Amino acid sequence: MAEITLTFPDGAKKAFEETASVADVAKSISVSLGKKAIAGKLDGALVDLTAPLKHDGAIEIITKNDPAALQVLWNTASLTLGAALKHLYPEMRFGEHAVTEHGFYYDTDNNKKPVSEDDLEAINQEMRKLVEQDGKITRKTVTKAAALAQFKDDQYKTTLLNNLDSDEVVLYHLDDFVDFGEQGVLPDTKVLKVSKLLSVAGAYWQGKSSNNMLQRVYGTAFFSEKEMEADDQRRQEAHDRDHRVIGNKLDLFFVDPKVGAGLPYWMPKGATIRRTIERYIIDKEISHGYQHVYTPVLMNLDAYKTSGHWDHYREDMFPPMDMGDGEQLELRPMNCPSHIQIYKHHIRSYRELPIRIAELGMMHRYEKSGALSGLQRVREMTLNDGHTFVALDQIQDEFKKILNLMIEVYDDFDIHDYSFRLSYRDPKNTAKYFDDDAMWNRAQKMLKGAMDELGLNYVEAEGEAAFYGPKLDVQTKTALGNEETLSTIQLDFMLPERFDLSYVGNDGEEHRPVMIHRGLVSTMERFVAYLTEMYKGAFPTWLAPVQAVIIPVKNDLHAGYAYQVRDRMIKAGLRVEVDERNEKMGYKIREAQTQKIPYSLVIGDQEIEDATVSVRHYGEEKTVAQDTNMFIDAMVAEVGNYSRTGKSYQNDSTKQLDKKN
Amino acid sequence: MAEITLTFPDGAKKAFEETASVADVAKSISVSLGKKAIAGKLDGALVDLTAPLKHDGAIEIITKNDPAALQVLWNTASLTLGAALKHLYPEMRFGEHAVTEHGFYYDTDNNKKPVSEDDLEAINQEMRKLVEQDGKITRKTVTKAAALAQFKDDQYKTTLLNNLDSDEVVLYHLDDFVDFGEQGVLPDTKVLKVSKLLSVAGAYWQGKSSNNMLQRVYGTAFFSEKEMEADDQRRQEAHDRDHRVIGNKLDLFFVDPKVGAGLPYWMPKGATIRRTIERYIIDKEISHGYQHVYTPVLMNLDAYKTSGHWDHYREDMFPPMDMGDGEQLELRPMNCPSHIQIYKHHIRSYRELPIRIAELGMMHRYEKSGALSGLQRVREMTLNDGHTFVALDQIQDEFKKILNLMIEVYDDFDIHDYSFRLSYRDPKNTAKYFDDDAMWNRAQKMLKGAMDELGLNYVEAEGEAAFYGPKLDVQTKTALGNEETLSTIQLDFMLPERFDLSYVGNDGEEHRPVMIHRGLVSTMERFVAYLTEMYKGAFPTWLAPVQAVIIPVKNDLHAGYAYQVRDRMIKAGLRVEVDERNEKMGYKIREAQTQKIPYSLVIGDQEIEDATVSVRHYGEEKTVAQDTNMFIDAMVAEVGNYSRTGKSYQNDSTKQLDKKN
Repeated sequence: MAEITLTFPDGAKKAFEETASVADVAKSISVSLGKKAIAGKLDGALVDLTAPLKHDGAIEIITKNDPAALQVLWNTASLTLGAALKHLYPEMRFGEHAVTEHGFYYDTDNNKKPVSEDDLEAINQEMRKLVEQDGKITRKTVTKAAALAQFKDDQYKTTLLNNLDSDEVVLYHLDDFVDFGEQGVLPDTKVLKVSKLLSVAGAYWQGKSSNNMLQRVYGTAFFSEKEMEADDQRRQEAHDRDHRVIGNKLDLFFVDPKVGAGLPYWMPKGATIRRTIERYIIDKEISHGYQHVYTPVLMNLDAYKTSGHWDHYREDMFPPMDMGDGEQLELRPMNCPSHIQIYKHHIRSYRELPIRIAELGMMHRYEKSGALSGLQRVREMTLNDGHTFVALDQIQDEFKKILNLMIEVYDDFDIHDYSFRLSYRDPKNTAKYFDDDAMWNRAQKMLKGAMDELGLNYVEAEGEAAFYGPKLDVQTKTALGNEETLSTIQLDFMLPERFDLSYVGNDGEEHRPVMIHRGLVSTMERFVAYLTEMYKGAFPTWLAPVQAVIIPVKNDLHAGYAYQVRDRMIKAGLRVEVDERNEKMGYKIREAQTQKIPYSLVIGDQEIEDATVSVRHYGEEKTVAQDTNMFIDAMVAEVGNYSRTGKSYQNDSTKQLDKKN
Repeated sequence: MAEITLTFPDGAKKAFEETASVADVAKSISVSLGKKAIAGKLDGALVDLTAPLKHDGAIEIITKNDPAALQVLWNTASLTLGAALKHLYPEMRFGEHAVTEHGFYYDTDNNKKPVSEDDLEAINQEMRKLVEQDGKITRKTVTKAAALAQFKDDQYKTTLLNNLDSDEVVLYHLDDFVDFGEQGVLPDTKVLKVSKLLSVAGAYWQGKSSNNMLQRVYGTAFFSEKEMEADDQRRQEAHDRDHRVIGNKLDLFFVDPKVGAGLPYWMPKGATIRRTIERYIIDKEISHGYQHVYTPVLMNLDAYKTSGHWDHYREDMFPPMDMGDGEQLELRPMNCPSHIQIYKHHIRSYRELPIRIAELGMMHRYEKSGALSGLQRVREMTLNDGHTFVALDQIQDEFKKILNLMIEVYDDFDIHDYSFRLSYRDPKNTAKYFDDDAMWNRAQKMLKGAMDELGLNYVEAEGEAAFYGPKLDVQTKTALGNEETLSTIQLDFMLPERFDLSYVGNDGEEHRPVMIHRGLVSTMERFVAYLTEMYKGAFPTWLAPVQAVIIPVKNDLHAGYAYQVRDRMIKAGLRVEVDERNEKMGYKIREAQTQKIPYSLVIGDQEIEDATVSVRHYGEEKTVAQDTNMFIDAMVAEVGNYSRTGKSYQNDSTKQLDKKN
């Protein structure tokens, strides 16, 4: 019998019979490992415990403590879910199933009676039964042709099989249910002690909205109750922070796929937050030497052919519009070519450099409808965009200025949980980058030098630069745990070439500038989503759509004075409402807390007599009487500390920064 | 011989031989009229002096004093221009020629050497020669077929002939030049005493940018030097006020058809003006109870089918984009359907009405490329839009509130030269309007009532209402003399029906609201064009992109202090620059005047010693020393009077208005 050679994580090599399974290999190492093994990895790909390994490779034994163990558990759980569903709904057909970051799902089509969340309890019990029966899962390797024959009446499975690359398919049988998918499934369901079905949501077959809608059943499973409890908590926290949930509760925005997928409508309160951010960032940038412009969202397609976007980025772009007259217009996916037009409108001199062009630039990108999510992933977005045009020797200084500005902005928004990543070209494969070795070396050194000078920590990532130049990304995490780029600074040697940009140097000759693309706070959509999750909807006073609500103890006695106070506050530039509804005072105070309004101001006889307001800050239990004038002044100062009257007009680019992260 | 009957303006009828010409008719009235007649009108259409009239109709004799006389003169002048060009450029081919509001033009194609403005003097002299020769113009009526045969080698003329409706063509011969066109050409060139060629501009053949570019030669002519002088003055004034000229001189914006026809780029200075207006109007509207939102520029085409725009307005809309997934997206031509989505997002109660939704809403309208002009006629525009949703009995009150707000805004911009026009439905043809007699009668009465209550003058125009409701337009004139609608308030009974809008009334039942479309200051594009022309580029301080320039007497001695003053002014929220170029002080002061900067502040030894600045206001000759602090305070107050810290937060909707216009 033929032999295979397996390489272990410690580098040791050992020969096995080619029919040896992961279980055999584990047992050969130790009895206890043989007992603990739940699957293996051969050259990084999961293989079932009992599958014959058949060829040489790097082997890993997966036990419960291994990070990959949950994937095996969830594969097994989704098979069990399928079997339970088949018991309960014999007519049901099944679409895709998959493991996600936190569990698994199965897409179902129960034509006459779609599964709903009301059914989850019964399905869960059916799964428990299968587990208690200690159900054996048998695996059988067949040819794709055989599998196609077996599933010939199932349109979904037929499509999925046809999309498989391999000629062999592993079929898993549990009870009377048969399915196929990735390897890494347990040989029986007994390990599945702690599982839970979570939700049902509509999902188009294969993610295309022209296909029919299936019901996606979500679940999760763990090896212990403790892990499940931790996940419950994580899930609750993510839900509480989810900007879509908060956005709905606080009436900030909505998206309605019927009028446009990925096209958000900002309700008045969300619009107030956005407008406040927009004014803040424009004023801030102007005070740092940026020139704000407005440029069209449409441009002749030729410009995107020149820029290279049409060749390399087309599938993320909207379809061009034929305007007759030979003109094809394109909704811009980026603002760079627009700002290049502004640059090129005049002959530029070295004396003007760096030239900093900025805009809240609306852009359109075609995202697949399945990828769209609230304000985080949209098709129409407004980017806090800026392009600075510099001479080669100004790169390091300008990069530092942008970083300082960025950190100043982050401080104002109280953002501290982020990390820096410097991306260089791949030194082993320089051919695939813009061709100018000296420029790359010099620029990468300047970026690194700037980070070091500012004493910032960072990760260096070779081979992650853009084609056209090195970059710095600022990474954060969303409430749902996804990594996200909040800001970016990218050097670009290419566009200045492609658009033939120049400036007249001290020597009277034409020189090529370098472009720096930079976004401080991403798009308005993504940034508001991020802030909503970070603040859990409790926006700081300067951003809160309603900064204070005034509650008269008795409407008939105290509303008049309440409106007087409101008018004084509005005159001071604050956003204030009077809650004069016919509700109890306690209800109104609770409501103000639910709406996360920074200040509730109660006004009754005593307050009128003393010219005070009884102030309750959001999240606090106690109410404190304060002199009305002094309170208004304090609120104005609080707001000002994060807006233009406060820090934003100080030009302190030389300020020393604390070491971050 | 057959006779025809001509009816004179006074109603008298008289018979003539059918070969009688205008000249014959004029002579038959009086010898002097026979001498003065230069052409005639038969049933309103111009006819040549010598052409046989041939059929019955209403006749008018045109003399020099008649408004139509200039048209005859300009027709004759353009023929003379053609003949002069043919002399100088025997190879030249000719496109269209026409009479405009202030003169005439001829499109030319001189392939090898396009005509330029440098050639105008020589062409003008050649025209003079033709006039001095007392050149006879002969007319000859031929069939279209004969004309086509004659011009068979001329692609332009062939196309023009084929587009003619008539089977007869009148050919005009002057010297060796032959042309055709509208009637109303003099029999010789001797009247053409005072003419002038003005400019040459590129023009696509038949206005299509896919066709080749011709050179359009513009000229004008008058019966007397005095008229020409008046026109010179008018032209100079229009040129000096033309927002395209000023926009270029002050670097406010540009449009480049190569990157997008009708898509303006706002340079930093223009953007500052626009941003100031945007913030002003948003703050003003919010203080008047409007809720500002942001809604997408794209919408599912279905919404515009529901609204009726797709059926009735399609040719002004951009082509829809097919997004796959069965979705067709449309760049919105109006914001109403978007604001309806905002309204419909919640169940609305009578207690909330009026609900006022506002937005600086970007829209796209397809204008023909020939109609595009600077910021005045564009394809992408941002409208100061608002929709208020009211109960029927709130129309009059809301209409008054909008009018008061509008007039308050006009006052802040110093706009006083405007007039009101109330448009009603045609009482004789009510069938073509939204079908609800009672609603129309009531609404029209309410609008009129509101105007009267406010003591405003207005014109009433029956039959000029929109299909969906009556409206008020506010009319102004542009620098070039075109009438323009600056603001509009339109009632709409139809969209609430079509989108099935409702609110819950006091009675617990569902009711249909009325929608009021209103724009206070039009689009940002059109409004900035209008203001630029009205102010002649000398924007008031609160709008000026640069509010003050500080000029050190000697850079090396006084620049330091100049920057200190600048920083204090910037901190006070002002837009200030220091002019530290190596130029003479006088040059810098003149330059500040050319750039129409409100304040030039000169700083030298004396000013530093006294803590003063020497202030020169734009347009004034004298310079006055002022205490620096006091001057800064005064400037802040001046700016504030037209922005939110000044008048804009007073809610004085009950203020009594002076009678206007």
